[in-house]
Amino acid sequence: MSPIQPIQWDPDRKVLTLLDQTRLPLVETHLHYTDPTEVAGAIRGLVVRGAPAIGCAAAFGTALGAVQYTGSSFEELDARVRDAMGVLARSRPTAVNLFWALDRMEKLLDSLEGRDCGEVREALEGEAVRIFAEDLAACQAMGDFGASLVPGNARILTHCNAGALATAGYGTALGVIRSAHRDGKVSMVWVDETRPVLQGARLTAWEMVREMIPATLITDNMAGAVMAAGKVDFVVVGSDRIAANGDVANKIGTYSVAVLARRHNIPFVVAAPVSTIDFEIPSGDGIPIEERDPEEVAGYGSERWAPEGMRIYNPAFDVTPAELITAIVTERGILMPPYAPAIANIQR
Amino acid sequence: MSPIQPIQWDPDRKVLTLLDQTRLPLVETHLHYTDPTEVAGAIRGLVVRGAPAIGCAAAFGTALGAVQYTGSSFEELDARVRDAMGVLARSRPTAVNLFWALDRMEKLLDSLEGRDCGEVREALEGEAVRIFAEDLAACQAMGDFGASLVPGNARILTHCNAGALATAGYGTALGVIRSAHRDGKVSMVWVDETRPVLQGARLTAWEMVREMIPATLITDNMAGAVMAAGKVDFVVVGSDRIAANGDVANKIGTYSVAVLARRHNIPFVVAAPVSTIDFEIPSGDGIPIEERDPEEVAGYGSERWAPEGMRIYNPAFDVTPAELITAIVTERGILMPPYAPAIANIQR
Repeated sequence: MSPIQPIQWDPDRKVLTLLDQTRLPLVETHLHYTDPTEVAGAIRGLVVRGAPAIGCAAAFGTALGAVQYTGSSFEELDARVRDAMGVLARSRPTAVNLFWALDRMEKLLDSLEGRDCGEVREALEGEAVRIFAEDLAACQAMGDFGASLVPGNARILTHCNAGALATAGYGTALGVIRSAHRDGKVSMVWVDETRPVLQGARLTAWEMVREMIPATLITDNMAGAVMAAGKVDFVVVGSDRIAANGDVANKIGTYSVAVLARRHNIPFVVAAPVSTIDFEIPSGDGIPIEERDPEEVAGYGSERWAPEGMRIYNPAFDVTPAELITAIVTERGILMPPYAPAIANIQR
Repeated sequence: MSPIQPIQWDPDRKVLTLLDQTRLPLVETHLHYTDPTEVAGAIRGLVVRGAPAIGCAAAFGTALGAVQYTGSSFEELDARVRDAMGVLARSRPTAVNLFWALDRMEKLLDSLEGRDCGEVREALEGEAVRIFAEDLAACQAMGDFGASLVPGNARILTHCNAGALATAGYGTALGVIRSAHRDGKVSMVWVDETRPVLQGARLTAWEMVREMIPATLITDNMAGAVMAAGKVDFVVVGSDRIAANGDVANKIGTYSVAVLARRHNIPFVVAAPVSTIDFEIPSGDGIPIEERDPEEVAGYGSERWAPEGMRIYNPAFDVTPAELITAIVTERGILMPPYAPAIANIQR
């Protein structure tokens, strides 16, 4: 079986291809992009989602900004690329990997001032390819580090999709589950459906079925009952931004899972690349939380179930305080509490 | 505005009319019943749901069993009614009010042995009408008792629909909210959507909009974030069965809300009539939990989002241990911990 590839770059045609995650699992279709504004639209519209995948897509979107300009004025090329980065930066506010990837592209661009346009285009494309390749390698490293924490015969609960689909491939939280499954340690994966956009029911479930990892889908509000019944040994989730003190922003509902895991003394582990850490933000209080369209809560697809005139609140993320987190798994190793010094140390 | 009437009995035509709750809020349609087996189907299919409403519907279903038999043999009438009660008893396993109502009808039937068939029919119908009227009065009493616990300017979170639609009218948990709103104490009601059947998004939201009580719909997994943001002062829910030690079975997800409320020191109150108490069951461990069709989790209405081949778990209820419950509001007053003696006392 071929690996799941949510993001593909064609170096000959300079085309970015995204697996349309809004239509999974019922329809597997790929969309092609040659314009950075359209890539920003794909990020906003959740064609591609998941913090590391958003970073990769933004890097390729930036490269497309350079490729689109076929002239030979560095100033014009520079302006075009910076415009592209501006549009991409406004696509989604919470995932810091987006800003991390754009920052890396910008630093490279700064260093190329006045250079030949062909060289600049090639360098930016090369950097995007590197960001992508590094993310894939990071996921595999995280998976192996994280698997060392998983007990034998484990029943593992996960929330949202921190899978191959949320990264360059392999996944963060699902990378840990993949490595643990490879090592024969997984007896069941409990998959929270993850309302309102159902990334668990649609995307994580699809990844599990596709790779024949034993898994059971539940609604988000069943996680507590499953834990109370003694059927969960380990929880692993991804992250969209980690503050310098170890507070973790992740998909809405993660906080509730962490509180329930604490009550039942179940390890609650976060898997995320170092690019998810926002060293500038001292605590979770400073992480901006995206609010999305109320229509996402009012129904799904062609079904609408909320009555007309009902007020709706739709935050896409919540913050889990560091004190509820057993370990943070990165590609450079496992961080343990107290997180502030562990995170400061990894920055160096 | 006319009150919400989920259950209506026509004493002239001997017809039971149910507001079809599977189609709310988008369509308001009434279904008419003259056959107990069809009433059982309506209970199983969630046309009528909510523990007290199920009890009322089962009582009328039993009366319909008597009405259907137009002959004059007590033995035949008795057999027909007992058959009806058997079918009704198998409709849903968790709500004890169902068995409580059937038990009450059966005791009456026992006491009428050998009597004139017309008299028996009239007595059974009268008992069903009494169960209905008593439930309505109980809800109003509970509402007023419960409102005394609500602080001023309260932001109240509720789960599922323990409303007028779940009872003869007025509601249990929503009865408390209605009385508190009448007293000017409610600034916001947070409505959990309550997957998979969305009783919150569809039914509680509909009741709030209809009566212009300020309310905001959230997905179940947002309750923790809203509490963490300091926006919830009080939680009130209904119940489908209360054990003798105060453990409470209620809609799946209630347990998670209780755990989150405890973490944030928010009062967690249960409102239920005494008929919800199962004095025979020592603790929540003994309460049977209904598992429903996996299709309820796989999608909603015409939308299906889970991939083919995905395993699904769909328990309809969970158990909240007594230690997480601040108070149990009944029509006979407010029970406080320790619940075992308080419940034993109310049985007398």
